[in-house]
Amino acid sequence: MADTIAAPATSDRNTVRVDLDTRSYDIKIGRGLIETAGAEIVSVLPGARLCVIADKTVAGLHLDAFSTSLDAAGIVHTVLTVPAGESTKCFREFERLCDDVLATRLERGDAIVALGGGVVGDLAGFVASATRRGMAFVQVPTTLLAQVDSSVGGKTGINSRHGKNLIGAFYQPVLVLADTAVLDTLPIRDFRSGYAEVAKYGLLGDADFFDWLEVNWKAIFAGGPERDEAVARSCQAKADIVAADELEAGQRALLNLGHTFGHALESAVSYETERLVHGEGVSIGTMLAHEFSARLGLIGEDTVMRVHRHLTAVGLPVRLQDIPGQLPGAETFMDIIAQDKKVSRGSLTFILTRGIGHAFVEKGVDPAIVTEFLKEKLEP
Amino acid sequence: MADTIAAPATSDRNTVRVDLDTRSYDIKIGRGLIETAGAEIVSVLPGARLCVIADKTVAGLHLDAFSTSLDAAGIVHTVLTVPAGESTKCFREFERLCDDVLATRLERGDAIVALGGGVVGDLAGFVASATRRGMAFVQVPTTLLAQVDSSVGGKTGINSRHGKNLIGAFYQPVLVLADTAVLDTLPIRDFRSGYAEVAKYGLLGDADFFDWLEVNWKAIFAGGPERDEAVARSCQAKADIVAADELEAGQRALLNLGHTFGHALESAVSYETERLVHGEGVSIGTMLAHEFSARLGLIGEDTVMRVHRHLTAVGLPVRLQDIPGQLPGAETFMDIIAQDKKVSRGSLTFILTRGIGHAFVEKGVDPAIVTEFLKEKLEP
Ligand SMILES: NC(=O)c1ccc[n+]([C@@H]2O[C@H](COP(=O)([O-])OP(=O)(O)OC[C@H]3O[C@@H](n4cnc5c(N)ncnc54)[C@H](O)[C@@H]3O)[C@@H](O)[C@H]2O)c1
Ligand SMILES: NC(=O)c1ccc[n+]([C@@H]2O[C@H](COP(=O)([O-])OP(=O)(O)OC[C@H]3O[C@@H](n4cnc5c(N)ncnc54)[C@H](O)[C@@H]3O)[C@@H](O)[C@H]2O)c1
Ligand SMILES: [Zn+2]
Ligand SMILES: [Zn+2]
Repeated sequence: MADTIAAPATSDRNTVRVDLDTRSYDIKIGRGLIETAGAEIVSVLPGARLCVIADKTVAGLHLDAFSTSLDAAGIVHTVLTVPAGESTKCFREFERLCDDVLATRLERGDAIVALGGGVVGDLAGFVASATRRGMAFVQVPTTLLAQVDSSVGGKTGINSRHGKNLIGAFYQPVLVLADTAVLDTLPIRDFRSGYAEVAKYGLLGDADFFDWLEVNWKAIFAGGPERDEAVARSCQAKADIVAADELEAGQRALLNLGHTFGHALESAVSYETERLVHGEGVSIGTMLAHEFSARLGLIGEDTVMRVHRHLTAVGLPVRLQDIPGQLPGAETFMDIIAQDKKVSRGSLTFILTRGIGHAFVEKGVDPAIVTEFLKEKLEP
Repeated sequence: MADTIAAPATSDRNTVRVDLDTRSYDIKIGRGLIETAGAEIVSVLPGARLCVIADKTVAGLHLDAFSTSLDAAGIVHTVLTVPAGESTKCFREFERLCDDVLATRLERGDAIVALGGGVVGDLAGFVASATRRGMAFVQVPTTLLAQVDSSVGGKTGINSRHGKNLIGAFYQPVLVLADTAVLDTLPIRDFRSGYAEVAKYGLLGDADFFDWLEVNWKAIFAGGPERDEAVARSCQAKADIVAADELEAGQRALLNLGHTFGHALESAVSYETERLVHGEGVSIGTMLAHEFSARLGLIGEDTVMRVHRHLTAVGLPVRLQDIPGQLPGAETFMDIIAQDKKVSRGSLTFILTRGIGHAFVEKGVDPAIVTEFLKEKLEP
């Protein structure tokens, strides 16, 4: 972990190993990592050609630096761009990218690189999994959310008209390069959104980390070495859970703290990111999960307030009323939740908590109690 | 192995175990198996609901029997049909099926069943792999090709405009039920096409099996217990190779005997099945592989003639001239082969042979020699 002041460029780095047998890989974390990305990739994939997939916004900001470092390492590469935004995670872009990757005549040992946020990572990862039934895959996550969450664990996919992330593959990258300096160009709203996931790791399983975040969040936002540490600790937390449960049979569900409600909210606003981005949904969902846990007598109001205080301090929304515009009623929310992929054979599974750092998976939650709870929250 | 005369309906069965750690599964082979399919599926997937995918031709012939057996076993199921034919293995059908499966609200433990030939098996398997990032998958192959080849080994996928099977996943079924009686309704041309793969298993690695086929092929075509034995021995041959090399890193390439040329032929006729079906391409490709091996001095003309004699006896095409209509020139074929997924880093990989039962993988074949060879074959 970084405990000195960040030196310029590439000297301050953390590595998190994701342990998955033959599919194990490293997540490298540090400021300026993008400038040595070429060398890092060559050491893992010697001789491979690359197809870099980026959204147009990220391409405009960081592609030059990335491409320069690939050139410096002698890596032959082509670039494919997609529009920025959640609606890019669709069948049409999936098809187009698979076809365009094939048109570049990449072979199976060559690699697809996702340079971007979670949207590009999820989409490009699914493309990598499917093209020639699996090409090597490298993630260069450029949002905080992608660095601490979506680039760890191998979930890839696109959205269907029936819901988010319902089509995809479990597919692991061979390398993840998280340059924390590229986050300097991230709009504050997106940084905050990613921070909701950082806070989640503390809340679900690591009270010490949550304590540390309450003290250090400003430095994380400002880009100090605390940012690298926060990213590394978050990746480690997720990597540990994923290593124990790669295909999401059990404990991995803990990562969905705040997400059952959060996904329902995203769906309810039709994934209109002007109204709600993923981490904002997670933030409100996390509050709801704590409030619901309090309602069930699992935690006290003081714990609810502490979470509320921290999320509010960093500027995250915490109430359903913080979402601009109309929301559907409780019954509609329940329908959305029932179709969510966290549902198992008709009974509702929720992530609840017995205190900060002590979330747990509760199967068989009574839908009637949830409906009642949501009704109150919607019309307080 | 069946060594008695087939008893009526369901009593004569063979089981081939495909050994892949936690993804191991059984292939059950026998006449009339479809009538007890429900019970077989319940024993592997208790409580699962099913979505059955079939092409319209197969649905017309065998869906009633299958559906009746599911009902008898109390299995809740829905049916989705697709048009018959290779062009169904496309992005559009993939997307439609994923969406339609989601619309049935199947959950992750529920299953998708492919009832049909290789087209439906490949497409439905890819849908199963991608929907909710992986649902349980059962194959009920109804063509000889699907029973002996495409349902074994876990390759699933669709075609791209850049070539056949270029988009897909490695995804294993939990059970394969091969009812050899459903092959009675298969047009002779499709039966022969599948038989090209049966002969391939003898040619690539089992001279005894090829001897046995030379003696018993008529009984296999007629539907005697020899058919069950041929299917079981073929599945076993493929299962052994797949178990040793699930992700096609090495020896699995032997299964491509006849396929590099065969795929190029299918591509050259734009997958128009009126002109050429898969096994016909394989048959001609297998002859070309033997002739090319003879050209390189690896086998004698007597071996070439013996293969020629058997494939001709069963009615399979063996020469490029057997394909109706114009074919492109040798250079175009080479371009097609270069884009074929069997190409590794620019050098051509072919499956050649040192005699019946002794195929081997040859990397780095000189494209110029192949071009020369093809020129002669195209303009004899
Ligand atoms: N695979 C997983 O396990 C997993 C986990 C969580 C979330 N997700 C998915 O991640 C997606 C959300 O990810 P996201 O929040 O990164 O969204 P995103 O990829 O859309 O990025 C958000 C915005 O930031 C821009 N951007 C990215 N990097 C930038 C930079 N360095 N500077 C300036 N702008 C930049 C993008 O162009 C985009 O407009 C969702 O689709 C969600 O489903 C996946
Ligand atoms: N996944 C693999 O490992 C693998 C291996 C070899 C081939 N394949 C694929 O398999 C496909 C070819 O398979 P196929 O030859 O089974 O084609 P197919 O599925 O199109 O079936 C051929 C025809 O027979 C009909 N049919 C199927 N069962 C019947 C029955 N019992 N009675 C009457 N008609 C019936 C179908 O409707 C179709 O018209 C190709 O797409 C090829 O790429 C895949
Ligand atoms: Zn999330
Ligand atoms: Zn074949």
